Amino acid sequence: MSGLELFGVDGIPEVRRGDDLAGMICQAAELRHHDVVVVTQKVVSKAEGAMVEVDPDDPLSHKPVVERESVRILRRRGELVISETRHGFVCANAGVDLSNVEHGWAALLPDDPDRSARRIRDGIRGRIGTDVGVIVSDTFGRTWRRGVTDVAIGSAGLLPVLDLRGTRDAYGRELQVTEVAVVDEIAAAAELVMGKSSGIPVAVVRGLDEAVFTDDTAADPSVRRGVLTDLVRSPAEDLFR
Amino acid sequence: MSGLELFGVDGIPEVRRGDDLAGMICQAAELRHHDVVVVTQKVVSKAEGAMVEVDPDDPLSHKPVVERESVRILRRRGELVISETRHGFVCANAGVDLSNVEHGWAALLPDDPDRSARRIRDGIRGRIGTDVGVIVSDTFGRTWRRGVTDVAIGSAGLLPVLDLRGTRDAYGRELQVTEVAVVDEIAAAAELVMGKSSGIPVAVVRGLDEAVFTDDTAADPSVRRGVLTDLVRSPAEDLFR
Repeated sequence: MSGLELFGVDGIPEVRRGDDLAGMICQAAELRHHDVVVVTQKVVSKAEGAMVEVDPDDPLSHKPVVERESVRILRRRGELVISETRHGFVCANAGVDLSNVEHGWAALLPDDPDRSARRIRDGIRGRIGTDVGVIVSDTFGRTWRRGVTDVAIGSAGLLPVLDLRGTRDAYGRELQVTEVAVVDEIAAAAELVMGKSSGIPVAVVRGLDEAVFTDDTAADPSVRRGVLTDLVRSPAEDLFR
Repeated sequence: MSGLELFGVDGIPEVRRGDDLAGMICQAAELRHHDVVVVTQKVVSKAEGAMVEVDPDDPLSHKPVVERESVRILRRRGELVISETRHGFVCANAGVDLSNVEHGWAALLPDDPDRSARRIRDGIRGRIGTDVGVIVSDTFGRTWRRGVTDVAIGSAGLLPVLDLRGTRDAYGRELQVTEVAVVDEIAAAAELVMGKSSGIPVAVVRGLDEAVFTDDTAADPSVRRGVLTDLVRSPAEDLFR
């Protein structure tokens, strides 16, 4: 049975606005064909300058930012806001986050996390000629279950949702469950080697099924697959909004 | 940097009621100290006889079973029912499933999936003297995001939710996100090596942080940790029920 290997990438220096993440990753890890590189939203936002200054002495100073980054508030309880972002993500505090950023700053979600992932993927291919999948991951809560898990907020070179329609099970019956959110499973797996406090912002997942990869170098941007295009549910098809 | 290895376990024979899953797993895989063994709900339900006969010629014959297995219906759309089970899980069709079971049968969720996991864990320790974590996994949809991912519905020997309260980030700031649902991340990771149609019902995850393991051999059952005790949100603390 073929297996998977996952490892966190050590030695990524502190990321600042304008930094070339693809270059930093190629420096720190020996990437192979069809590795998947998982990069936390935090360093992507830092590199892209998706940061705002907040009052370092006011623990609630990022709250107006949360309101501004929300297109719709779904629930409030105490300080907690669950809202929809302009990308269509539903998450706590519109993804605005003070952890692992410099005191006095808050990190926002990247403008277009699929584009962020594509830029890293293209940067890696340009630099070392290696085709990898890229996921930008963030940490979201869930309904009905305690605790958070990492999910994909952007991807490139991957099919975010693996479509198994028409596939049959071991008994020859057509599968009931047909769409597997593989990029979320990969992001969750990567969190296990990154941790929340160790400050490892990049992980590599090696050995994934070839079926999850897609060639998004095509000239036609309409064939590009990403989290925003494929995985975010529209309000109309969502039963809980 | 330490990494993770994941592999699917080949060679598990067709599971029937009364089968000794722990024995089958020890036969098929060489387990090591603090491996995590992820077992799909389907084979656990088969071994425990959590199956009901349905009319093989009526594709909707399991629907009355879904109603019976639900303590509360949250949403209906067409054939789809999102309901709460007596365990407190919220999922499609109360976890009743026709895939990868013999024609004419439907699989129910195990009565107490934490107990199922503990039985496998104890069986493995009794047989080969090796301490492993065990997760019983199932495939659930999510709100707001397309596609399904595998989650943990039962666990043993593991802290389902890793509590990072008081932990500081790389900048010395206390973490905002404090509870990581590691068993769900492990279940999601395991799905990547099991697949939906290949019929591999067991995966091994090797190399996890020691912090996720717990000794639940203690005589006092109140110290046992599991998905039902630690991870299922009570309706009162849930904002979406």
